[in-house]
Amino acid sequence: MFSFDNQIRVRYADTDQMQVVYHAKFIEYFESGRTEAIRHLGITYKEIEEWGLIMPVVKLTIEYARPGLYDDLLTIRTILKELPDSHSIDFHQEIYNEAEKLVCKGTVTLFFVEKATRTKCTMPAPLREKLLPYFN
Amino acid sequence: MFSFDNQIRVRYADTDQMQVVYHAKFIEYFESGRTEAIRHLGITYKEIEEWGLIMPVVKLTIEYARPGLYDDLLTIRTILKELPDSHSIDFHQEIYNEAEKLVCKGTVTLFFVEKATRTKCTMPAPLREKLLPYFN
Amino acid sequence: MFSFDNQIRVRYADTDQMQVVYHAKFIEYFESGRTEAIRHLGITYKEIEEWGLIMPVVKLTIEYARPGLYDDLLTIRTILKELPDSHSIDFHQEIYNEAEKLVCKGTVTLFFVEKATRTKCTMPAPLREKLLPYFN
Amino acid sequence: MFSFDNQIRVRYADTDQMQVVYHAKFIEYFESGRTEAIRHLGITYKEIEEWGLIMPVVKLTIEYARPGLYDDLLTIRTILKELPDSHSIDFHQEIYNEAEKLVCKGTVTLFFVEKATRTKCTMPAPLREKLLPYFN
Repeated sequence: MFSFDNQIRVRYADTDQMQVVYHAKFIEYFESGRTEAIRHLGITYKEIEEWGLIMPVVKLTIEYARPGLYDDLLTIRTILKELPDSHSIDFHQEIYNEAEKLVCKGTVTLFFVEKATRTKCTMPAPLREKLLPYFN
Repeated sequence: MFSFDNQIRVRYADTDQMQVVYHAKFIEYFESGRTEAIRHLGITYKEIEEWGLIMPVVKLTIEYARPGLYDDLLTIRTILKELPDSHSIDFHQEIYNEAEKLVCKGTVTLFFVEKATRTKCTMPAPLREKLLPYFN
Repeated sequence: MFSFDNQIRVRYADTDQMQVVYHAKFIEYFESGRTEAIRHLGITYKEIEEWGLIMPVVKLTIEYARPGLYDDLLTIRTILKELPDSHSIDFHQEIYNEAEKLVCKGTVTLFFVEKATRTKCTMPAPLREKLLPYFN
Repeated sequence: MFSFDNQIRVRYADTDQMQVVYHAKFIEYFESGRTEAIRHLGITYKEIEEWGLIMPVVKLTIEYARPGLYDDLLTIRTILKELPDSHSIDFHQEIYNEAEKLVCKGTVTLFFVEKATRTKCTMPAPLREKLLPYFN
């Protein structure tokens, strides 16, 4: 299993008039979690795109447990439970507030796709190598 | 069953560098769909809040079928398959492009909550009355 | 002078916890105003990009007169006071609420740029032709 | 003079199909800059709201010098050139990329307003005390 935590400060822009974080904003926080998790491995998603791949989101689910509030320093936990063998990768993501209470959790499925041909492919070898030690 | 369609023009702001609509943006389009569906019934979500209720999103799932593109005139279809009896309401939502191809679909679950006490409640009677004819 | 009005419904996503439209959101509404103004002339900004041009925003000013509120049906007024001769175009934009009161106004300056070379150019001839009658 | 720098990582969500940061996003980065500048002084904007004040943005100007790119680690510089005596405060803000090149700069004017009465007021004393040493 691979797990990584990063933090995000809730901006005023992220709140709505219910005085909580707008529900779709957490999806952006999830993006930040995946990006930082990959960076922690020594690769950037930016590089992956430079290698000619894109990783579109094809499915996501999210459950909201309690509100996120303005100026909260949220912890985004990004988990890979399995090393994907196919063109599909599932990120399990959880967001906690400063009291370590769950704010929301979800699963985001992305595909590995060759940008030029828009055909599905598998995880690029350099990323796979970096992840392998977490799954032995 | 109750079903309502409204339309949204994709803004430049909604796109990302993959040259498609950013995946979280569709969640905002879903919001617009629910709002316009309720307005079509003769009630506004704004009024519901004035009655002392709020309707936080507690769960959502979304599957992406094909990209949304800049300047697309998207059709948001918002469907209630059942008239809710409890504090929970499920909106089934679909987004189609101008070629009538599915872009994405999902389900958004919201709770009816009393704003003052933050306790769950049921659908306000005026909204229930408007919806009843669609479920007989 | 060329002037065009379009309308936008304020979404929940656009509000912040001050219970008004977040100040940066109006910049997106301005974008919608420019897009619809051009469409009204029989050209789309999408086409302009297909012709190999892009129009980056290089400068903007905005003054806020009164709050925009959730569910407001705002009117975006987009005005060209002059037909530009250079690589630069100034859109004057105003936003009014349903009571016809000014919400905010601003000026957005964009450049005409050749996408391939990133060099400045002038307004594409087809757009110029459509605009000419408004300036005679 | 008071000046403070903080950093922001550009998210995919912040880009548009011109493959740069969408122009209105920098206004959100400016917000983050002001928030972190105040936090650096030992006060949070959240506290200011708890004291019964709000600080709506009343005017802003921004000039774009070069594009912000996906995954850039941008530096937001937030400057107070004067200690405000009235109900109005001007933040001068600049954004630099990792090559220390200017991406954009602007000025954001906010008012101090009593939330309950919506009347203008002056800078809260605790904030003024923290800022005074920078202006002697």
